[in-house]
Amino acid sequence: MRLFNKVAIIGTGLIGGSIALAIKKKRLANEVIGVSRHKKSLLLAKRKGAIDRGSQALNIIKDADLLILATPVNTIIRLAPRISKFIGKDCLVSDVGSTKEEVVFRLEKLFTNYIGSHPLAGSEKRGILNAHPDLFRDSLCILTPTRNTNNKALNKLNLLWNRMGAKTVRLSPQAHDKILSFVSHLPHIAAFCLMAVIPGAYLKFASTGLKDTTRIAASEAELWTDILLSNRENIIKSLELLQANMSRLKSALQKEDKQLLVKILKKAKEKRNKLDLVTSKLVTSNS
Amino acid sequence: MRLFNKVAIIGTGLIGGSIALAIKKKRLANEVIGVSRHKKSLLLAKRKGAIDRGSQALNIIKDADLLILATPVNTIIRLAPRISKFIGKDCLVSDVGSTKEEVVFRLEKLFTNYIGSHPLAGSEKRGILNAHPDLFRDSLCILTPTRNTNNKALNKLNLLWNRMGAKTVRLSPQAHDKILSFVSHLPHIAAFCLMAVIPGAYLKFASTGLKDTTRIAASEAELWTDILLSNRENIIKSLELLQANMSRLKSALQKEDKQLLVKILKKAKEKRNKLDLVTSKLVTSNS
Repeated sequence: MRLFNKVAIIGTGLIGGSIALAIKKKRLANEVIGVSRHKKSLLLAKRKGAIDRGSQALNIIKDADLLILATPVNTIIRLAPRISKFIGKDCLVSDVGSTKEEVVFRLEKLFTNYIGSHPLAGSEKRGILNAHPDLFRDSLCILTPTRNTNNKALNKLNLLWNRMGAKTVRLSPQAHDKILSFVSHLPHIAAFCLMAVIPGAYLKFASTGLKDTTRIAASEAELWTDILLSNRENIIKSLELLQANMSRLKSALQKEDKQLLVKILKKAKEKRNKLDLVTSKLVTSNS
Repeated sequence: MRLFNKVAIIGTGLIGGSIALAIKKKRLANEVIGVSRHKKSLLLAKRKGAIDRGSQALNIIKDADLLILATPVNTIIRLAPRISKFIGKDCLVSDVGSTKEEVVFRLEKLFTNYIGSHPLAGSEKRGILNAHPDLFRDSLCILTPTRNTNNKALNKLNLLWNRMGAKTVRLSPQAHDKILSFVSHLPHIAAFCLMAVIPGAYLKFASTGLKDTTRIAASEAELWTDILLSNRENIIKSLELLQANMSRLKSALQKEDKQLLVKILKKAKEKRNKLDLVTSKLVTSNS
């Protein structure tokens, strides 16, 4: 079932490209348009069948009834005022940025039917080459409506994500950013810092433990700098908790307090086992 | 080709069981004997074809010409004096403990032909049920000879690991423990501490990033307490470096120093890319 006539996607990278591919695969729109500042990305998106037409110029998005902003958060914020000039007031608008408070605050003022999205899918790999129509299957997508949100628009956005295979959950932009500072931004910081301190000559002695723990340290530096800066207050708080926890473990080591160490590690292990349970439940409920 | 007549393995868990299975599969010995304090583990090891005979009593290891100590480090140290009474002076002895300085120091005094091993294989899963004859294929095994080491014994131990599919590298026990504090123990601490600080209610919002980063936090608490304690001086030093690095990143965030953040993240990403290169080279050279 076609949900939209003309879909415009700004930023045809991993996430934007995968949305385009999913919309095409599920036949959710008559036409998918891509905008990118990279000509090559548009060519690849077209060759992959993700978009029908692409352009580096914004005016191609005119008359779209769904607009997805899929560039990094700071680019979304920078481009939004110009983009809004091409967009009619009935167009459903969403973004896929990794932080929400600032972007929702700004975009709500520019677009009548804007609601933030954050699909918890993706990887450290980027670009249209890694895009996949099934990227969102069995994943979770957070929607961040506010008291200004139009309910009909929210339901339609919800339906779009469901059709692309994602289960949705609703959070306020504030709650989203606080939670993500723990479950996403903090692990990235841990991975980046781990890689930073390990001497290069020791890398050849790494086994799968280090590799898995630091896989996300291969994420793009500019993109992650923007994410960290745009959520810095929450991140500083969660980082301070992590540092305090590490100091507690260090002190137990210094005192050779075996009992306390076992207690700390056991609690972490139990929570890690729970993590597998709550996230596999999600997959089950979608499949 | 049979390298040994009677192999005795003390501790028939994931690593001990996998060594037994690999020796059986490659026909490297006439007989494989298992010792465990868990009767069930011995029964399972026998049913899996890992051992020919098993016992909870140590005297079954008499006349072995290869002895592998595959219990946690502190158990190795505790049992070694009793074990040494059953072992002839020609028997090749090794262990698979995750830290080496203390265990090598003690075991060299008890066994004429002892050399430490540390196979960089395994997982957060434990027990004979997860043992596999190919666990060591394309993996790296660190051998820790000292100036007391008999060269013939070292070559034979080297050959054993090669036959089980592992490439070997030699390090002093001191260098081993320093390097492992960075590439293995520190990532475990990061994973344990990450899990500790993430509120339980937030877990359902986790995506693959957090799951990969904390997979090793599901490791056994008692085992890891022993590993951390037995290498605590090196670990405290590497942990302090990690904490300093996190403070530096936090300060860049607080100052909104975008340039410094990009620099920190880029350097980490480059090292992470190098990690894939140096470790995949290892796999290539073995396969």
